[in-house]
Amino acid sequence: MGISRTSSTFSPPVMDARRWLDGVTHPDDRPLINVSQAAPVDPPVPQMREAMAHAALNDDNVHLYGPVLGTQSLRTALADNASKHYDTRITADNVAITSGCNQAFAAVLAALCTEGDEVLVPTPWYFNHKMWMDMSGVGAVPIPCEDNMQPTVAAAEARITPRTRAIALVTPNNPTGVEYPADLVLAFFKLAQKHGLALIVDETYRDFHPSPAAPHALFQQPDWGQTFIHLYSFSKSYRLTGHRVGAIIASPDRLQEIEKFLDTVTICPNQIAQHAALWGLNNLDAWLGEQRLEILARATAIREGFDVLAAKGWRLRSAGAYFAYMQHPFALSSAELAPLLVKDAGILCLPGTMFVPDGDPTGATHLRIAFANLDVAGIATLYERLSAVAL
Amino acid sequence: MGISRTSSTFSPPVMDARRWLDGVTHPDDRPLINVSQAAPVDPPVPQMREAMAHAALNDDNVHLYGPVLGTQSLRTALADNASKHYDTRITADNVAITSGCNQAFAAVLAALCTEGDEVLVPTPWYFNHKMWMDMSGVGAVPIPCEDNMQPTVAAAEARITPRTRAIALVTPNNPTGVEYPADLVLAFFKLAQKHGLALIVDETYRDFHPSPAAPHALFQQPDWGQTFIHLYSFSKSYRLTGHRVGAIIASPDRLQEIEKFLDTVTICPNQIAQHAALWGLNNLDAWLGEQRLEILARATAIREGFDVLAAKGWRLRSAGAYFAYMQHPFALSSAELAPLLVKDAGILCLPGTMFVPDGDPTGATHLRIAFANLDVAGIATLYERLSAVAL
Repeated sequence: MGISRTSSTFSPPVMDARRWLDGVTHPDDRPLINVSQAAPVDPPVPQMREAMAHAALNDDNVHLYGPVLGTQSLRTALADNASKHYDTRITADNVAITSGCNQAFAAVLAALCTEGDEVLVPTPWYFNHKMWMDMSGVGAVPIPCEDNMQPTVAAAEARITPRTRAIALVTPNNPTGVEYPADLVLAFFKLAQKHGLALIVDETYRDFHPSPAAPHALFQQPDWGQTFIHLYSFSKSYRLTGHRVGAIIASPDRLQEIEKFLDTVTICPNQIAQHAALWGLNNLDAWLGEQRLEILARATAIREGFDVLAAKGWRLRSAGAYFAYMQHPFALSSAELAPLLVKDAGILCLPGTMFVPDGDPTGATHLRIAFANLDVAGIATLYERLSAVAL
Repeated sequence: MGISRTSSTFSPPVMDARRWLDGVTHPDDRPLINVSQAAPVDPPVPQMREAMAHAALNDDNVHLYGPVLGTQSLRTALADNASKHYDTRITADNVAITSGCNQAFAAVLAALCTEGDEVLVPTPWYFNHKMWMDMSGVGAVPIPCEDNMQPTVAAAEARITPRTRAIALVTPNNPTGVEYPADLVLAFFKLAQKHGLALIVDETYRDFHPSPAAPHALFQQPDWGQTFIHLYSFSKSYRLTGHRVGAIIASPDRLQEIEKFLDTVTICPNQIAQHAALWGLNNLDAWLGEQRLEILARATAIREGFDVLAAKGWRLRSAGAYFAYMQHPFALSSAELAPLLVKDAGILCLPGTMFVPDGDPTGATHLRIAFANLDVAGIATLYERLSAVAL
């Protein structure tokens, strides 16, 4: 069918991985452990479900088109929430609501780049970011992470060219789970500022950060809006993955550009989703605090239980927020290992090959585990099954 | 902020038009008549709202990620519905569900075209199609409509170049309301087939077509999937504008490409929206039939009441499905007239300038009226107010 935007990229990894399940049955006493996608397995709290139902029944407006950049009430509530979280002052004019955080990234890239431009991205990277760059004609320039799974400013600076338009970070990171230290994020901001680039920071997993303090000081920088673009997702924090609601915090002039993309691609975000997100911001602070502690406990279980895998030659490269990135001990590529794990261990996870550029050998030796889908007991079971794998 | 995908296009017309309302008050006895956007003013039927509420409360799955191309149940139901509507056989494998029909167009274009390609589009065109082509680096090549507001195959064929990838039609048309005859649509299919192009047909207003028969015979053509791509929207038919749910019917191999775009931009369509659409397909055939008759009655009122405007020098260029396209008698551009109508007549509608290429003089003399938002009495009021305008 010829050359097209979509033909320049690969097929969706999560859907490819789902196909490994076809024809595989899992015994009742060993159900599938799905750590392939960062997706809370439980539905939202009952009161939030009731709020959605109430809106569907009683609020005529949720059935009608809304403003392209989201409802004023949700934009204001997220501005207030982020002001508190980052200890700063953000207003509704800085906020756009999107149909999920992937769309937030897509819209931001469209507002920053055109054909032949480049964006610097630490590797391993989030595959949907890479896919959108491919489909946008934008070169994704890898910044290989150091042994601590963090990129350095020097490595980034060395890769800046006249076509570079932005640096895109994800912290807490997908796929590695690493939380970038505040001073690293600030150093990237200063690098971007120095070179007139935008710094995109996807903070989808913000609410599971181990530090109770603001994770970075970018919103405190003078003229932050000239450089910094923040992305957020309601999906993981409030268990709203099926509803598609995310956000962008940026300067109003950037949002005016972003509005063109959002209008053209979806007209407005889903209204009941926005209603649910607003209800969450207004009512679930305490609950979200408990969720955070639970997920931090799961991260601790990932780290503390790892000995059993270390004894078999595995290495935990990093873990945090939602993900662990693990080096496996087998003499085959993770691309072959991952489908085998479905059959042999009843585990669905994604191979590192899905998160690195073609030809980067680090992908073959790693697996991404979306551990936050599992409780502490589930993590123990995961480790039992992984440690029993012999190839 | 430099050159970017979004900087290559204009700002959203509907949002620009909403800004004309700022600071204008409408007396209680003369409320605003909003015929700017094709948006049913009423919410969905109560039973559909109950179905959404029930799903929010009781179906855990609506809160979780679903398949990128939509739920199997909705894909199957739309395949069955379209099989009946078009008197053919379409299967779920031919169907993708999207976050609204704008996204359907965006995804299809990404699967067909890349930088520097061209798509033929009759003018006046639907502005969001033009905006997406701009943002995709795809040239929108205008095919000026004839006096009957229909394009000719000859005019299209004369504009085919080696970079042409597709022809994009909208029928019933936005902005003109014209329903393209079945033989014209078939002739465009044959033209596209002859030149190895895709034929995209956006049938968002399908359910308000005046003919009870299939509006075209494209699905009956051998190998239709090699050429034809159909777009549909649940928004207008089932009053789901706030929910963002549309669809693509195409060949499975095209859908595999389209899946890459949909996954990257939104991961999956909103699940409650899909639930509502499914409920509508399963339960609202009779209701939708009545809605269609009501909207056809409104179109009749638009045509039959036009004398009062004709007497003032207006000309009804076309009307059908959801829209009327009217030539105004004033010696100023529609771009100036439309904001004046908000103040002077309490009417919000869009100027023809928003639907034509820069420099096309036909835009200045026309207005688009989304008349189906109004009942027959409302149309009479609209005509009274328009006929009283004197400049």
